[in-house]
Formats: sequence, C-alpha cells, structure tokens
Amino acid sequence: MGKNSNQFVQEITTMEIDFPQWYTDVITKTDLVDYAPVKGFMVIKPYGYAIWENIQNYLDKKFKETGHKNCYFPLLIPESLLTKEAEHVEGFAPEVAWVTHGGHKELEERLCVRPTSETIICTMYSKWLKSYRELPYLYNQWCSVVRWEKTTRPFLRTSEFLWQEGHTLHETSEEAQDETIKILNIYKDMCEELLAMPVVSGQKSESEKFAGGERTYTIEALMHDGKALQSGTSHFLGQHFTKAFDITFADRGGKLAHPYHTSWGVSTRLIGGLIMTHSDNRGLVLPPRVAPTQVVIVPIAAKKGNVMEKVDELYSSLKSKGIRVEVDDRANYSPGWKFNEWEMKGVPVRVEIGPKDIENNQAIVFRRDLLEKNSMSLDNISKSIEILLEDIHNTLLNKATTHRKEHTYEVKNMEEFKKTIEETPGFVKAMWCGDDECERHIKDETGATIRCLPFEQENLGNICFCCGKDADKMVYIAKAY
Amino acid sequence: MGKNSNQFVQEITTMEIDFPQWYTDVITKTDLVDYAPVKGFMVIKPYGYAIWENIQNYLDKKFKETGHKNCYFPLLIPESLLTKEAEHVEGFAPEVAWVTHGGHKELEERLCVRPTSETIICTMYSKWLKSYRELPYLYNQWCSVVRWEKTTRPFLRTSEFLWQEGHTLHETSEEAQDETIKILNIYKDMCEELLAMPVVSGQKSESEKFAGGERTYTIEALMHDGKALQSGTSHFLGQHFTKAFDITFADRGGKLAHPYHTSWGVSTRLIGGLIMTHSDNRGLVLPPRVAPTQVVIVPIAAKKGNVMEKVDELYSSLKSKGIRVEVDDRANYSPGWKFNEWEMKGVPVRVEIGPKDIENNQAIVFRRDLLEKNSMSLDNISKSIEILLEDIHNTLLNKATTHRKEHTYEVKNMEEFKKTIEETPGFVKAMWCGDDECERHIKDETGATIRCLPFEQENLGNICFCCGKDADKMVYIAKAY
Repeated sequence: MGKNSNQFVQEITTMEIDFPQWYTDVITKTDLVDYAPVKGFMVIKPYGYAIWENIQNYLDKKFKETGHKNCYFPLLIPESLLTKEAEHVEGFAPEVAWVTHGGHKELEERLCVRPTSETIICTMYSKWLKSYRELPYLYNQWCSVVRWEKTTRPFLRTSEFLWQEGHTLHETSEEAQDETIKILNIYKDMCEELLAMPVVSGQKSESEKFAGGERTYTIEALMHDGKALQSGTSHFLGQHFTKAFDITFADRGGKLAHPYHTSWGVSTRLIGGLIMTHSDNRGLVLPPRVAPTQVVIVPIAAKKGNVMEKVDELYSSLKSKGIRVEVDDRANYSPGWKFNEWEMKGVPVRVEIGPKDIENNQAIVFRRDLLEKNSMSLDNISKSIEILLEDIHNTLLNKATTHRKEHTYEVKNMEEFKKTIEETPGFVKAMWCGDDECERHIKDETGATIRCLPFEQENLGNICFCCGKDADKMVYIAKAY
Repeated sequence: MGKNSNQFVQEITTMEIDFPQWYTDVITKTDLVDYAPVKGFMVIKPYGYAIWENIQNYLDKKFKETGHKNCYFPLLIPESLLTKEAEHVEGFAPEVAWVTHGGHKELEERLCVRPTSETIICTMYSKWLKSYRELPYLYNQWCSVVRWEKTTRPFLRTSEFLWQEGHTLHETSEEAQDETIKILNIYKDMCEELLAMPVVSGQKSESEKFAGGERTYTIEALMHDGKALQSGTSHFLGQHFTKAFDITFADRGGKLAHPYHTSWGVSTRLIGGLIMTHSDNRGLVLPPRVAPTQVVIVPIAAKKGNVMEKVDELYSSLKSKGIRVEVDDRANYSPGWKFNEWEMKGVPVRVEIGPKDIENNQAIVFRRDLLEKNSMSLDNISKSIEILLEDIHNTLLNKATTHRKEHTYEVKNMEEFKKTIEETPGFVKAMWCGDDECERHIKDETGATIRCLPFEQENLGNICFCCGKDADKMVYIAKAY
C-alpha cells in the first residue's frame, strides 16, 4: 500500500496491544461517534448514523412484511406505572433518570425517562383492547432510551442509546411464543445478511432473562477479542405484565382473558458489534450491505484526458444499479491521502482511474477486506463490482464464522474451563445442570457468564462441568460486553 | 350513502357546532392518537404514525438530495449549556423538564430534556470545526423534544412532540441566508405537494422570532375555522450561538472566524394542520399522497363467483403501481359497516366489487373528498384509479386555496380590523409601521398576532392600520393555534 498509508495507520492502536484502545481509536478517528458533555452519553455522527439508518431500513421492512406497525409512546413514564410489575421495577429502578421538575414547578409525581416501554405501553393496551378480534397487536417503536450506566463505551453500553422495541399481544401462549422466535430469526438473519456477523441463537438462563419476563431469547456474537456480545433479545413475557396492568379481552367464548405478551429489541450496540467483528489495525472494515458508501472512485490525474468522463460514467452506472457510490474529486488532497482516508473509514471497494488505466481499458480496484489491489476491465465493470461486493460480504461472513469456530471450545470440568477462559478467550461449550448456584459460581470464579442455552443442543456428556451432578443442557459461556 | 353511514357519522361532533370537539372526535375516533397518562403527552397510534412516516420519507429524501446528513445528539443537556445564550435560555427555561436524579443518586448538575438542540449541537460543533474546508455543516436529526406546555391539544401543542431539527454552519452570511430560504421552500413544497395544504411564506416579526436567533422565516396555513397554524420555521441565527459557544474556523485567509448558523424544523403538528385543512363532519379526509392507505377494496358477496379473483387482480395491479392498497375481506362486518369505517378514516378511494359489477365489467368507485360514487370500467382500472388519486390531491389543494382566499381580508384601520377578526375569522392583510408597540396593542385588544411579513408584499396603502403612522410593511394577522 506504499508509504502514504502510514500517516493514518499509525494513529490507530494495534488491537493485539490494547484492544479497548484500538476500539476507541477506530470509532472516534473514523468519525462514527463522539463523547457528549454528559458522561456516558454519545453523539452519533453522520457516518455512524448512516450505518444505523441502513440497519433501520432493513429491519423496518422486515417488520412491516410480517405485519408490524410503528407507533410512538411517550418518553416520560410516571413512577407509579414503573412499579406495577414487581420484578420489572427491581431490575430497572437502579438505572433510570428521573424528571422532577417541569418548567419552574416541582412535579407531584416524578417521571422516569423510559429505560424500556413495557409499562407505558401496557397501560395504553389495557385501555384499548376489547375483543379477541383485535388481536394480535403487532406494534413497534423506534426511539431512544436512557439507562444510567456506571461504565460506558460508545455503542456498546451508553446511558442513552437508540433502538427499536416491539411490543405484541396475542390470543394464545403459542402465538406469542411463535412471535418471539419469528423476531429472533429476523434478528439473526439481519446479523448475517446485513452485518456479515454470525450469531448463536438460544435462550437465556433464569438469572439473565428480562426483568419481569418469562423467557428471554438472545443472539450472541463473538468479537475479535473472544468476548461475546449480546446482539438482540426477544422476550416471551407470558401474562406477567398483562395481569399486572389488567389487560383483558373478550375471548372466543365471551369470557375475559389476559393476552400473552412479547417484547423485543436491537440497538445501536450492533454498530459496536460489527466493528469488533470485522475491523482491523488499519481501521474500519464495513460489510458492503451496511456500508454508507460501498464504492469510492478516486480519479488519478483528474485533469488529464478523459479521466473525469470515465469516472462520471462509472459513477452513473454504479448508481443506476443502486450501489452507494461516491467520487472523491477533492483537489487539495493527494490520491495517497485519499486512499488512506477511505481505507481507514472501511469503504469496501475503492476504484482508481487514471489516464494510463484508461489507455489499457482498465481500472485499479482495491478491496478493503483483503487489502488486495487488482486491475479490472472497464468492460462491464459495474457488474464486476456488484459481484465483488457480494464476494466481500461472503468473505467477511466466512472469516467471522471461521474465527468463531476456532474460538469455540469444549470443556468437561471447572479446571479445564478456567484454563480455557483465561488462556484462549472465546465461547466455551459445556454441559450444565441448570442450577443457579453453579451459574453464580462460574461468574464469581471467572467473570464469565452463561450466554445462552443454544437451540442447537449437542450432547457433550451428562454431568455438569461445574458441580458434577446430572446435566442435560449444553450452554455457551463467555466473558461478555 | 344510505342508512349505514349514521352509525359513525353521529359519533363525530359537527364542526360548525363545536370546532374543538369536532377536532378531538376526529383524531381519537379514527385511531390517530390517544392521551397518555401524563397530562399534555400523547400516544401516536399506528394510523397516525403512518402519516408521520410519509412526511418523514418525503422530507428525508429532500434533505439528502440537498446534501444534508442525519445524526443524533443526546436527549439530555446540562443546565450550564442551556444558559450560554442569554435570550435562548430566557425563551426556553420556563418550559423545560429537568432531570435531577440518575439511578438512586442526585446529579451534581441538573440536565434538561432537550426542548430544541442548538446548545448541545453548538457545543459539539465547537469541538469539531477547524477549517473553512469542512464547511458547510449540513446536519439534521429526527427525534422528540419536550416543552412543558400549560394548554395542550394532540398534534397541535403537546408537551412532547416528534420533529426534525436541522442545524447548519456556513462560511458566509449569504450562504446561511440562502440555506434558510432553501429549507423554507422545501417545507412549503412539502405542504402543497404532499399535504395539499397551501401556506403563506414570510418572515416573523422581531417579537415572534426564535429565542436567540436573528431572523425567523415561517410558513403559515389557514385552518377550517379561520385560525392560522404555524407549520414550519427556518431560523437564520447569524453568529449569536457561534459566538456564545465559541465556534471558530480558519477562514480562507487563515484567520479565525465565527461561522453563520441556521436551524429549522417541522413537527407532528403538521398532522393537526392537515386534519383541520381537509377533514369534514364525517371524519378524516386524507390527501392521497400522505394517506397510509390510498385505496381500500371492499368485496361484495365475496363468496360468489369470481369476486375474490377480480379483487386480488386489482389489488396486485394497484400494488405494482406503488399504490398503498388494502382489501377489507373481514367476514364479520357488513359492506355498509366497512364503508363507514373507511370513510371516517379518510381513505381517499374505496372500490366496491360484487358479482353484478363483474357481469358489467365495472367496479363502483367512491372518492372520499367529494363523497361521489361512480362506476368505472374494469379495463385499465388501476390506471384510472392512479389518475383519480392525482385528481383528488389537486381538488383538495384547490379547495383549500379557495377557502384561504375567501377568508383573507384587507383592513385599513383598527375598527375594521376588530370587526373582521371577530365576525369573519381568517387572515387579515394590513399595512404595519413595524413598531413593537402596535404589535402588542393588536394582540392585547384581539388576541390575534402578526403571523408574518409575507415575501409577496402588496401595497395596500402607506399608513399603519393600528397607529396611523407611516407604514411600508404588509403583514398577515390572525388568531392562531
């Protein structure tokens, strides 16, 4: 990549030396995000927000195709509503922000800034729902939520984050259960199809489930450093909230019944996930389908011959294929400077076109994932680039899948477990008895947690790796963000 | 429309009898919105939110086409930032909500829930901006804001509302001024092209401008009841905030300079505006381009012959033209009941297809705006409907424009003014000296306010209608929401 690269590359800490600092360098130096004046809050800059918009567009379309509609519930929730579901308030009260004054007046009842909206939404559902004919309720909202966090890191854990939260009601338990899994599969597909980020799907243990819910399903991804990232959750809430909020409907027999309830969400945390899955010591590596700019064209010796003509031609041709393309024709920067900038910003494909290339009826095409530079015929080049973008997506997904496989281990006992989790961080598969006691012990001893009971169970034996009692559940364990 | 209509029609108060109650009936009975548990807050239900999504899609596309990018700034702003611009804090402090506790701890500095984001955004811009090469900054965010209002009405004035707020920085005053007008024109076009709602563009008087700004431009619409609705504003903020927040850049001569600044926004208030522009005593009338459902097909005697086959055919054909169409095949409701429901919900076109219609190679097509029912040949019917939707848009825009013309009056003196504003509510055009004193007097005497100094000035004379002194400004005056 020549000498020009160094100027930027040196600004980013090497991940093998200091992974957290590498992450911080990548997200701030590529203009994804900045720190806000209030500790723990972030500003999502245009380049970062454009990634979020691509995630939104993908999901919003899938939600609508599966019959969901968007709506908007208020930001502020009276304290008396938050406390209606006992486990829920216990889980969330320590981390909510409280509004106590409106204008110059003290409020009679303080209001919390929503940490999640089950309580306000159930209050409204209780008012609306009358008959089984209206079910299912399939509603979603895109908004921000606030949770007062002690230790924060942009995208991964912040005191305010953007997300979507779906809240559905169903006539039967089975329908609600089906919805929960349907959504989890949409999340899983999104991670793989859009973010090229493989995930393990499964169920959370009792101690890790949503506060006030019955069962929580999760997708878990594995980051470069061998830590897991919970990337999306889908909760089967049963009738916990519908009873606490007195939501009833006239069922098919004319009797009053409580509906079954789900909620589910993914957040801007996904952006952190895709960075720690694909990016490298030169900066961002963005999977093409989610990249704000998929192709950048850098004209070489732009004033010579018909360079700009060819550039414009390629630009239009890529644009007409729906490819997100930009031309970097800034006069005051050298090509080398531009190469570095776009490389650091993770644009999947860079095309260089100069007078000599045109003579040879070719362009130079650089793919960010493999750092490979090749010449490509100008004949049908936009089609070739379209194919290349798909190849980059697949290559990234395969690479991440291989990384996960290589960092997934099996253990039979605590000794093996401790050694593995310390020496070769990653997913550890093991048999578990299902006991809280063991779960706590694992966490206390190593800081690692049971990430999920995966849907794809394997029989690794029949005794608990922790206590040695009978075990019939295979779990994934890891240290996690 | 037959007997079946009455069931619904009677539920909506007649606007000539009680306009505010008519408005409340329309918005709640058509499932646009509901009242939240906290006074002054609203829940935007799926049908209302879908209208907002159509407004968002229109504007977001226009903003992006004109080079703007989206981003996200934090919800909570430290009090010390709010107070940096003296006029700004004076304008907004009485209506902000304050967060004083995070989790179980009292905060060292209280935080306000953003009423608008100039202060937090300028804080970040000050950190980011270095050189003229980076200008202009053309950023926008979609979010909710909170303003503690005493008297509220859903969509029109609520303590929380959804909006977009653009915040731009420019090298020169001229560029910032151009931006302000460019955006105002996008808003005006949106009102007319999407909402079929004509607006008057102009400048706000000194007393009505944005707190802390230099000049405010506005678009003002006239409602059914002769009251004006401020429907969007675009502020030229000069260097007021860029100085207060110490935003500087190295200019072309290498000297430090303060950039020029604009901000602009429209909100969910527009939904209130379009209702009070088009709807009638039967319920909503939605202009086709913003209607969540543009066409509803009601099968008659659905089980007979090939009714559903024809219905599905038409559905697919309309869908393929990008028309938002639904089939109402609910078995447990009569056609008459369905007609009423869709009529009240303001769907622009209803198509009825039954066995007899198919025999005659026709369908019955009802247009909501004129309450007209006609038969339409099934040959090329989707094309005919496409044309009909355009005609409905134009008819609604013309009707609203005529209504505004018929309710725009000229006055020469206070006596005429008072009589006009009381007896024939609407826009009053008059010459004004430009004095604060007169402006206050007008408001104190009648409750009406100067809505704007329209860009299209007319010479109605040369003396102020209020004080009789020299006047060279023509203003629009009205009572307003």
